[in-house]
Amino acid sequence: MPITSRENPMVKEAAALLKSKKAREESGLFLAEGARLCAEASRSGIAVRRLFLTEEAKEKYPDYLKDLIPAAADVQEIAPPVAEKLSDTKTPQGVFAVCEFPENRADLGRDGLFVVLDGLQDPGNIGTILRTCDAMDVRGVLLCGSADIWSPKVLRASMGCLFRLPVAVFADAAEAFAALHRHGCTIFASTLSADSVPLGRVRFPKRSAVVIGNEGSGIPEEDLAQSDTLVTIPMPGRAESLNAASAAAILIYSAATGC
Amino acid sequence: MPITSRENPMVKEAAALLKSKKAREESGLFLAEGARLCAEASRSGIAVRRLFLTEEAKEKYPDYLKDLIPAAADVQEIAPPVAEKLSDTKTPQGVFAVCEFPENRADLGRDGLFVVLDGLQDPGNIGTILRTCDAMDVRGVLLCGSADIWSPKVLRASMGCLFRLPVAVFADAAEAFAALHRHGCTIFASTLSADSVPLGRVRFPKRSAVVIGNEGSGIPEEDLAQSDTLVTIPMPGRAESLNAASAAAILIYSAATGC
Repeated sequence: MPITSRENPMVKEAAALLKSKKAREESGLFLAEGARLCAEASRSGIAVRRLFLTEEAKEKYPDYLKDLIPAAADVQEIAPPVAEKLSDTKTPQGVFAVCEFPENRADLGRDGLFVVLDGLQDPGNIGTILRTCDAMDVRGVLLCGSADIWSPKVLRASMGCLFRLPVAVFADAAEAFAALHRHGCTIFASTLSADSVPLGRVRFPKRSAVVIGNEGSGIPEEDLAQSDTLVTIPMPGRAESLNAASAAAILIYSAATGC
Repeated sequence: MPITSRENPMVKEAAALLKSKKAREESGLFLAEGARLCAEASRSGIAVRRLFLTEEAKEKYPDYLKDLIPAAADVQEIAPPVAEKLSDTKTPQGVFAVCEFPENRADLGRDGLFVVLDGLQDPGNIGTILRTCDAMDVRGVLLCGSADIWSPKVLRASMGCLFRLPVAVFADAAEAFAALHRHGCTIFASTLSADSVPLGRVRFPKRSAVVIGNEGSGIPEEDLAQSDTLVTIPMPGRAESLNAASAAAILIYSAATGC
């Protein structure tokens, strides 16, 4: 028998993970939505505590569910109105997974490029930047003062990259920067200032970190002061015109390929 | 007296421009929304046929409206329900401008970088790419088979860059490529293929065009065949992971700065 009540305790617990950062942090759980995203979470080694499925979804996504169902610790069938309650989209696929946060996997002791998101707020931008990090083989993503990456919008925009990327959350940028410096990492902060070093002239050492700031206000002054080098993207046209995720793509590509 | 009827002919005409590409193409008009965006349209030399304003907007945005109101050929006050009908957002500012399409301003005879959008569909991606083009001083944007740039979502994501950028619309890519070749432009098409030239090894001549393809399927085979060089962004991590606007940012930056 499928769960038909939107007030069912299991449903209410999952719905809280969808909506509340506090509920996610207190439980150490998040809710993934969509057949492909849930399958990717499981395939990337993330533990699925509970899987919610509509009958229609079972028929529609056998390829994604084949390995996902046996991997889940518990499976519950749900009726369409329950799927609507658990969904962040207009047309839910009817597949939801209650997942455990992956362990803090960012190993700052490795050579390579790290990316710090310092106060980023737009979930779409954060997800897009995580995709870029995945493409460019970034060693780890450090988050400080940014929107919660386990929110449904970031999960969706990152298209599953979040499950593979080593991510670490810090209380503030000072703590993240100190950890990077302890591991011999050189910190490059991106700014719009003409006094900064143009990107093309920067040489990135083996252990480098690129800092991306808030969409509107950039990186806070006190964090710029703790950085080793201020970098700017040369813009022959109008400055301040780049979207945050586009600026991040240029910086991360340049640093990753040493261009 | 403000217009209170959502069935008023002037309102219906403007609402059609909001919703229908056909209405925009037949009339040569588009609808801009928001105090800042409308002011930027006028400031960029775009003719404003009619301005719709709520009483509240007049009080709230005097700085933007100061030059905009005298520049408009006609000004109509509207009631809040009419503003809702004309708006593409949940919380309308109550400022709408019926604008004339700018003339086809892309001069292919100039040295510099051109960008071809070949089949791009996501309005957010298109607007973000137009911002990148503006930042990187792109000489002109050529559109073929892409979503309509005068739609409200593209206008919003481009943040007014669209008004300053020289843009030309072509029936198909073949026509756009032929025009570029006639002007001695070298055409670089971006692909995910490992056989293509890695971006870092490409030298862009003075007259170059970069082609960005569809989000899912990339550039059609027949258009690749008409290109001069196939380029790929080196991805040490996972290929196919870049968002279209992020990939475009890397390509346009590299080509514009000769990096």
